[in-house]
Amino acid sequence: MTVTTQSLVVGQQATGTDITVPVIRFQGQGRGPRTYIQANVHGAEVQGNGVIHHLVQLFKTHPPFGDVVLVPMANPLGINQKSGEFTLGRFDPVSGENWNRQYHFDPALVQQLARDMADASEQELAQALRQGIARQIEDKLASPFGVKSGQHLALRLQKMALEADIVLDLHTGPISARHLYVPEYARERAHLFNIPLNILIPSDFAGAMDEASFSPWWQLSEALAKQGRAFPVMVDAFTLELGSQEYLNVEDAYRDALGIVRYLQHRGALPKFDVPLPEMTQYACYLDDYRAVYSPCGGQIEYLATLGQPLAPGEPLARVWHFDALMTGDRESRELTLPEAVIPVLHFASASVRQGTELFKVLSHHFLL
Amino acid sequence: MTVTTQSLVVGQQATGTDITVPVIRFQGQGRGPRTYIQANVHGAEVQGNGVIHHLVQLFKTHPPFGDVVLVPMANPLGINQKSGEFTLGRFDPVSGENWNRQYHFDPALVQQLARDMADASEQELAQALRQGIARQIEDKLASPFGVKSGQHLALRLQKMALEADIVLDLHTGPISARHLYVPEYARERAHLFNIPLNILIPSDFAGAMDEASFSPWWQLSEALAKQGRAFPVMVDAFTLELGSQEYLNVEDAYRDALGIVRYLQHRGALPKFDVPLPEMTQYACYLDDYRAVYSPCGGQIEYLATLGQPLAPGEPLARVWHFDALMTGDRESRELTLPEAVIPVLHFASASVRQGTELFKVLSHHFLL
Amino acid sequence: MTVTTQSLVVGQQATGTDITVPVIRFQGQGRGPRTYIQANVHGAEVQGNGVIHHLVQLFKTHPPFGDVVLVPMANPLGINQKSGEFTLGRFDPVSGENWNRQYHFDPALVQQLARDMADASEQELAQALRQGIARQIEDKLASPFGVKSGQHLALRLQKMALEADIVLDLHTGPISARHLYVPEYARERAHLFNIPLNILIPSDFAGAMDEASFSPWWQLSEALAKQGRAFPVMVDAFTLELGSQEYLNVEDAYRDALGIVRYLQHRGALPKFDVPLPEMTQYACYLDDYRAVYSPCGGQIEYLATLGQPLAPGEPLARVWHFDALMTGDRESRELTLPEAVIPVLHFASASVRQGTELFKVLSHHFLL
Amino acid sequence: MTVTTQSLVVGQQATGTDITVPVIRFQGQGRGPRTYIQANVHGAEVQGNGVIHHLVQLFKTHPPFGDVVLVPMANPLGINQKSGEFTLGRFDPVSGENWNRQYHFDPALVQQLARDMADASEQELAQALRQGIARQIEDKLASPFGVKSGQHLALRLQKMALEADIVLDLHTGPISARHLYVPEYARERAHLFNIPLNILIPSDFAGAMDEASFSPWWQLSEALAKQGRAFPVMVDAFTLELGSQEYLNVEDAYRDALGIVRYLQHRGALPKFDVPLPEMTQYACYLDDYRAVYSPCGGQIEYLATLGQPLAPGEPLARVWHFDALMTGDRESRELTLPEAVIPVLHFASASVRQGTELFKVLSHHFLL
Repeated sequence: MTVTTQSLVVGQQATGTDITVPVIRFQGQGRGPRTYIQANVHGAEVQGNGVIHHLVQLFKTHPPFGDVVLVPMANPLGINQKSGEFTLGRFDPVSGENWNRQYHFDPALVQQLARDMADASEQELAQALRQGIARQIEDKLASPFGVKSGQHLALRLQKMALEADIVLDLHTGPISARHLYVPEYARERAHLFNIPLNILIPSDFAGAMDEASFSPWWQLSEALAKQGRAFPVMVDAFTLELGSQEYLNVEDAYRDALGIVRYLQHRGALPKFDVPLPEMTQYACYLDDYRAVYSPCGGQIEYLATLGQPLAPGEPLARVWHFDALMTGDRESRELTLPEAVIPVLHFASASVRQGTELFKVLSHHFLL
Repeated sequence: MTVTTQSLVVGQQATGTDITVPVIRFQGQGRGPRTYIQANVHGAEVQGNGVIHHLVQLFKTHPPFGDVVLVPMANPLGINQKSGEFTLGRFDPVSGENWNRQYHFDPALVQQLARDMADASEQELAQALRQGIARQIEDKLASPFGVKSGQHLALRLQKMALEADIVLDLHTGPISARHLYVPEYARERAHLFNIPLNILIPSDFAGAMDEASFSPWWQLSEALAKQGRAFPVMVDAFTLELGSQEYLNVEDAYRDALGIVRYLQHRGALPKFDVPLPEMTQYACYLDDYRAVYSPCGGQIEYLATLGQPLAPGEPLARVWHFDALMTGDRESRELTLPEAVIPVLHFASASVRQGTELFKVLSHHFLL
Repeated sequence: MTVTTQSLVVGQQATGTDITVPVIRFQGQGRGPRTYIQANVHGAEVQGNGVIHHLVQLFKTHPPFGDVVLVPMANPLGINQKSGEFTLGRFDPVSGENWNRQYHFDPALVQQLARDMADASEQELAQALRQGIARQIEDKLASPFGVKSGQHLALRLQKMALEADIVLDLHTGPISARHLYVPEYARERAHLFNIPLNILIPSDFAGAMDEASFSPWWQLSEALAKQGRAFPVMVDAFTLELGSQEYLNVEDAYRDALGIVRYLQHRGALPKFDVPLPEMTQYACYLDDYRAVYSPCGGQIEYLATLGQPLAPGEPLARVWHFDALMTGDRESRELTLPEAVIPVLHFASASVRQGTELFKVLSHHFLL
Repeated sequence: MTVTTQSLVVGQQATGTDITVPVIRFQGQGRGPRTYIQANVHGAEVQGNGVIHHLVQLFKTHPPFGDVVLVPMANPLGINQKSGEFTLGRFDPVSGENWNRQYHFDPALVQQLARDMADASEQELAQALRQGIARQIEDKLASPFGVKSGQHLALRLQKMALEADIVLDLHTGPISARHLYVPEYARERAHLFNIPLNILIPSDFAGAMDEASFSPWWQLSEALAKQGRAFPVMVDAFTLELGSQEYLNVEDAYRDALGIVRYLQHRGALPKFDVPLPEMTQYACYLDDYRAVYSPCGGQIEYLATLGQPLAPGEPLARVWHFDALMTGDRESRELTLPEAVIPVLHFASASVRQGTELFKVLSHHFLL
């Protein structure tokens, strides 16, 4: 098995220093799907690097069938950007743009292929789509007007992901239970990852890596379906949210790695070996039912609800404290509740919040996966 | 003439302090269009407050025909948020969301009105549209899931703007020449503002106040046009970019105020009085031709091009310095040029830039307004 | 018992909004020492507010003998200042100055009193010292050159603290075990707070509230001792570090409140009532032995040592991961150890660190309190 | 003439990337004092890099007599740290510590040398002092407890500066006229730099590079003077403030370079050649009279006074606007004045300020240099 490592240039600092990401390539045995896995695109979300560490160890003893590309610490700008003690890694500190909303997808390309190559073979269509996207990315990077910092990074990561049949993007929430973004067409395979909470998402593109990876294929499948042709969605892409940000636990990461292994084995990307994973109840909801809960007022917060556990209507998510009201006769605290049953997935990382701060995200109208 | 002032609550701090904006209402004489003007929604963009100061003085001696609502310092969260010496006022420091991308517009409402009320009078349609939007805003604010901080502010500003026939949003660029966003339908009136550079924008909605104000009316006009009915765009909305951020010059603001006065007089919102404004050449381009220029590399920047002046192809916009290359034999500096003629409108505020930093915005394929 | 509340103005925002702190005053029975307690001067350190909540409840049923002034959420600027999801509450975001290093102390005043009033009564000296400091604070606030933001706050808090005989400043660490800063002269009373880790500090002044409160009295005592006169240190001041920042647990805060109650009872500030507190081992070290441990390299961190537990020489504090080194042959991780026995007190809040980041603070050369 | 360049490692990012500074060494002709010049230690203060660019050109045609070490872009962490559009380069974003307050000086070493080597030759004393400081720096860097990020940088820069007889640290103010920090013993030489405003500073050490460079020599001179021995201050060190931050003008930098050349020629470090510099009036004051002016209230600011020009008592420095007061009857603006004559040196970079923001720094009780 050939394994190569590379330090890929994805930008340049004001001081002239190159900004680089580590890339590890396992050359497969020429069969089975190709896999691309990246971690830490949001700078504070480090746990995925520990997962990649374990995958590397596992792949050394169980060589993958298809090529695998691994990119830990995929966003050096986000990782190295501090503001106070914390990593300001979710958005570009200059522009405010989310690092995971800057990938490329042009639906017109899909429509053009569906129109011009409706009778081509699956392989021809797949090749044309990959080449078309690759050419658009190259054109963007070559523009005399330049491209923005976030895209220097995103487009170079995407070029690697574009060659894969399976794309996994390892994130975390702020303070969070493990959860998974599942494109609806891949719902049957979601359970393999061994993640308790699942959000089923449609074929829309809003700029994220998973969407950039599956949307072209999914929308091509949809466009050809309208013409009466069954065309499979040829790429699987998932975003895994592996717990809380600013937290690294390499032992825990082993279980996360095993879930990925089980999925890769199922897909034929890895040889079978024993993957001991516990049984768990897996819940899901649709994206429209994955709701944010915003603070109804300013205050200081005690987070009460247990993440990942179903919460009955009216049970408290949190208690909001108004310490400015002590002895004034005004209300000193209030419970935050919802009128419907939900499962809290994650909560805000700070105890002090303005009115309108996103305090929780919750599954609503949830069901068993 | 009745003038009232109010301190409108638009949010609450973690400490319990209300977040408020000042609102000044001139009650008009019951004729002429109603006007809404706000300034400083981006926290560092202060010059519009000086303009409102002058408008107040002018309105006292020249009472408006229609009601006027003025909101200076419209975003206290943005204005009061510092990071280092500068105001971090462009986006919410928690979420990274642009403060001027959080207004509300639901195109389905327009489609429903065009379908259900195609034969109603202009006045009935206008009333139904205003009421429909107002109801949606109230529903959002009343959600048991809450609404995000930026929308607590934006929706309350929008409720006031929704009652107006003319909406002006006063901004600035970073380091910038004066420029104006003009909805294409209002192109003939753009010159009245006395602003040299103009960007013609379509009816799309991306979350900004001007779009939130004109898109419903414009899209209703378009929808009814498809049914063969001519329906005027009943609301004018413009974003004025009055020079550079972090810079207040109240004397200069008088000229900006006079341009607005000339426009309001033309619209019948103000009585005629002499408005001495100089002649100027006014350029314009379409939004797709209003281009960002991103730095091709990291480095330190000398900004060379004069803002607002046409620049020939190949003439330098800036010089990028690589002081890490002194005596190394590598290139110590390079000129940044474009292969086509442009007019530089604004440039970045800092001298140190990463690769991909938005260095300039330029008019391209420009023409006389 | 008379209890009054006040909203004390301590500054003004750019938008003109007053910056205020809540002040709760319990009028005592005219005997026993006067007490001043504040919390949350560092914006992310919220737990002390929960303690003040419980003290208020306890004082209502057990009226204090002496006056008590309570100031929760004592730094609105720090509490409301976010950067990303977290509260940037440790230092002024404009100047970088620590909010708890801006109190006032002029040693020359102490030297002057020791010289000019060496034969005055204790009461006369105490009054002269209080009046002298109060006058200096007033003079600062009245300077035509103004005073900096942090001092507008600090000096107004200090004016209240100056009237007290006991000053408690409630803080937290980043991720932290409970610990206490104890002026050496008060060592015997430290155990009453029921805090396991204690740092014994000298009479130096570096700008903090505790120092500003005890240094004048302590240095006066030292100066008079040189002249052969025994003069007691008449003010006790402590900084309590009540666990981790960005974390509010009001139930836990009850135990913290009981420790304070036990101390206040011992000092005669509160009537005796049963205070059920568990036995614990209490460790201490001198300030020079309270050491920071800086990261020897950049990397991502697994924090391994249990806070508050003695750690043998060579036992790992943390593991530093270099995920850029996967499969390169370079070292993928290293343990961080120390050559001597320590007790880890707190650790850094983020998992990604530059070389030289303060990873831990530890007691060294520690002993039983 | 031998010229070498080096990329000196001064730290490591979380991602494992080395943090480096460029170092350019001109080997002199073995006579004349040795010179160390650095620029851009505060990340936003870039103009000094342009000066070093010109010095490099001048030294190529006029080889220095003594060794010269040049360090442009001396603080990569500060230069590359953005927050919003601006460089957050004045203090460490994690700790809040000023990058230019982290150099090393231990006065005990000076006292020891004055005691133990009072009769040694000048050369022996100089060597012992340099070796002593170098050893202390090495010991710090080798501590098993590590050293903080800012010191990883500062101590490595200081090791280079320690070998020089002349140390120049090139800074800028926020919005600023050119000014110079002059140690009092070097007052006669200050005029050579051709800088209009000069601040005379004492031998105290507060952590800055200039102080770290001259304090040991100056305090040694003072200590030996007390013993009756005349010992010259053997090192000259100055901080040059070359205009405004975030602004690079390489043409202007030529004049700044010529002032340095004139000083170096006078000191015998460079051969004589014609240095055409204009006459100017040069003012000075003592450090205690270099006063900050803090905003008396919150508001938005028009900066009125011309930097570098004497201002009579009562003449306005700025106008503070309260746009929240429009039409309320409250004061809409106020002038900021001082009761005494001053020369404004610099002002704050933003137009929106809290009460207590440092608006201006001014020379007071000034005189001709």
